Amino acid sequence: MNKRLHLFSEWLQEQHISFALITSSPNVFYLSGFYCDPHERLLALLVFPHEEPALICPQMETARARQAGWSYEIIDYGDTDNPWQLLERHVRAKNIKIERIAVEKSHLSLERYEQLQAYFQAHAWLNAEEKLRQLRMIKEEKEIAILRQAAELADYAVEIGVNAIAEGKTELDIIAAIEYEMKKKGVREMSFATMVLVGENTANPHGVPGLTPIRKGDFVLFDLGVIVDGYCSDITRTVIFKSATEEQKWIYDTVLRAQLAAIDACKPGVEIGSVDRAARSIIEQAGYGPYFTHRVGHGLGIELHEYPSMNAANEMPLELGMTFTIEPGIYVPSVGGVRIEDDVFITDNGAGILTKYPKELMIVS
Amino acid sequence: MNKRLHLFSEWLQEQHISFALITSSPNVFYLSGFYCDPHERLLALLVFPHEEPALICPQMETARARQAGWSYEIIDYGDTDNPWQLLERHVRAKNIKIERIAVEKSHLSLERYEQLQAYFQAHAWLNAEEKLRQLRMIKEEKEIAILRQAAELADYAVEIGVNAIAEGKTELDIIAAIEYEMKKKGVREMSFATMVLVGENTANPHGVPGLTPIRKGDFVLFDLGVIVDGYCSDITRTVIFKSATEEQKWIYDTVLRAQLAAIDACKPGVEIGSVDRAARSIIEQAGYGPYFTHRVGHGLGIELHEYPSMNAANEMPLELGMTFTIEPGIYVPSVGGVRIEDDVFITDNGAGILTKYPKELMIVS
Repeated sequence: MNKRLHLFSEWLQEQHISFALITSSPNVFYLSGFYCDPHERLLALLVFPHEEPALICPQMETARARQAGWSYEIIDYGDTDNPWQLLERHVRAKNIKIERIAVEKSHLSLERYEQLQAYFQAHAWLNAEEKLRQLRMIKEEKEIAILRQAAELADYAVEIGVNAIAEGKTELDIIAAIEYEMKKKGVREMSFATMVLVGENTANPHGVPGLTPIRKGDFVLFDLGVIVDGYCSDITRTVIFKSATEEQKWIYDTVLRAQLAAIDACKPGVEIGSVDRAARSIIEQAGYGPYFTHRVGHGLGIELHEYPSMNAANEMPLELGMTFTIEPGIYVPSVGGVRIEDDVFITDNGAGILTKYPKELMIVS
Repeated sequence: MNKRLHLFSEWLQEQHISFALITSSPNVFYLSGFYCDPHERLLALLVFPHEEPALICPQMETARARQAGWSYEIIDYGDTDNPWQLLERHVRAKNIKIERIAVEKSHLSLERYEQLQAYFQAHAWLNAEEKLRQLRMIKEEKEIAILRQAAELADYAVEIGVNAIAEGKTELDIIAAIEYEMKKKGVREMSFATMVLVGENTANPHGVPGLTPIRKGDFVLFDLGVIVDGYCSDITRTVIFKSATEEQKWIYDTVLRAQLAAIDACKPGVEIGSVDRAARSIIEQAGYGPYFTHRVGHGLGIELHEYPSMNAANEMPLELGMTFTIEPGIYVPSVGGVRIEDDVFITDNGAGILTKYPKELMIVS
């Protein structure tokens, strides 16, 4: 068994769980190496404390699962089969006592839960999600290598965006230029809908890009990422078009100092909350405290947002292999906003930085 | 109350349901006019048999809900509030007996179900999904008007794609060109990942676009759609680059005749299965029966796939206002595939056609 399945099986042993049924695509991918969006069909990984795991998947996906390296049993089914019945048969054949079953409670639908209940009269239904979040939180070297590639492409996407800036171009024009080049590079999917905001729109951290044109003196904010081999990158850069006011320069300088301070605070063993506070105190000292309205970052990996949550209240210590964003921002209504975001990972020496696009204030002309 | 909420409330009365909690974004949008992707936060519509409905949403979305026209109560909550508690308080204040609760069983997670169970000791948990699928299946005139706009943009996207065809261009190059123009037109989101396949790749109805270049004699297949005001379009066209073999022409001609026959079969009162069979029998007569491996189409609206399912076994009659795709195809391994897809709606006179890009065999040079 691969290391991930092994660690998860150990947890099942410790918790006296009869079996776990994992149905979310990211967790199936993490444990099996096989990524599949089965739409409404059932895709599931059966993991046992002492026996070999099995993958349940639609027949048309079996070949892809093998190509992805899945070497254990595959319980595949056609459109006229009942996958739940096949699943039950497989479990019954193991001759194990069914007492405690683990599922993903925020992912498993009530409909599927009712199906499972009809087949298995368990005493307890447990949630496997927390354990999987913790396993996924610590990245292996090969995962960081993939995240590095995803970050490099995100750097390039920002470069394309900055080069596309011109008087009168709209937010959607710039996005179109970025995604065009990404497609040509062979990128199939962005991590999330690419965000380009200009002028006052940058003051909304959740702004929706539209037909607002770029004018002299505007902030232009890029927030984007790409998916490489199932892993997400996420970068934000903010530049100014043609001329900057003193206030804009001061806001930018404050965010940059905050971001560098947060990165500097990242070391193995350091409490996560202190990373957020390192950035926040600089922004507060500059008088912009109320305008930094979100946590300093989020874990990054197979999903765009995963553990650890980089918020001020998180008392967990940083550990080797954690990978996350550092992205403080200041958003002043009717003036504009600045956010600077890098993807980092924890090494013995502190934060390794995956995204490398320059961060000094850039006035694009 | 709007007509949709009114019809849904009537169903709650008939079924003696105490209240329904609707949490999927498409159904909340259908009933309230407010589209929102709340990520992991709770977005929910409380609908009662006799009382006014209420919307539960994150504070930061309240203004958008009002802008979207929601005029009933909004129970909004901040990040430190417990929305389930607010929900319970709202329901309790109505002084109604809680016996039967309707939810969306394929959407509600086990975690949320356990939350609800902790607050409400109902005798029965019912599924509201089938009723909502049926309501959504019959489109109002204003919905068809929006679908028409979405279809027009899909036509334009195919035009862009056909114009971008050139020797050596890859599938992803063509997709980049299409999505670039769509973004410039103000389209924020495609209905699904745009599919452009060339050569033998067209023989896979679920093919994934990549870096395969276009060569003389290739089929080039476009399958794409755009989202306009929350409604999806979906079109497929297949063209040939430079020169066509007799077999290619024969396959194309067969699919086109099948598609026209299926459209011709669409009339109010006609059994849905017969639409599929109209296309299938033509393809079978031409000897390609085993290569038409999917149903003839699917309902279309707020979601890309909704009711009615246009399959051979569906005995439901066509009704005025139903909107769906007609998309027969023939996929011959190592030769290639052809699919032709239109979006249609049922009128007194048969099928009205929303997508209008030409369907005659086009040899692009």
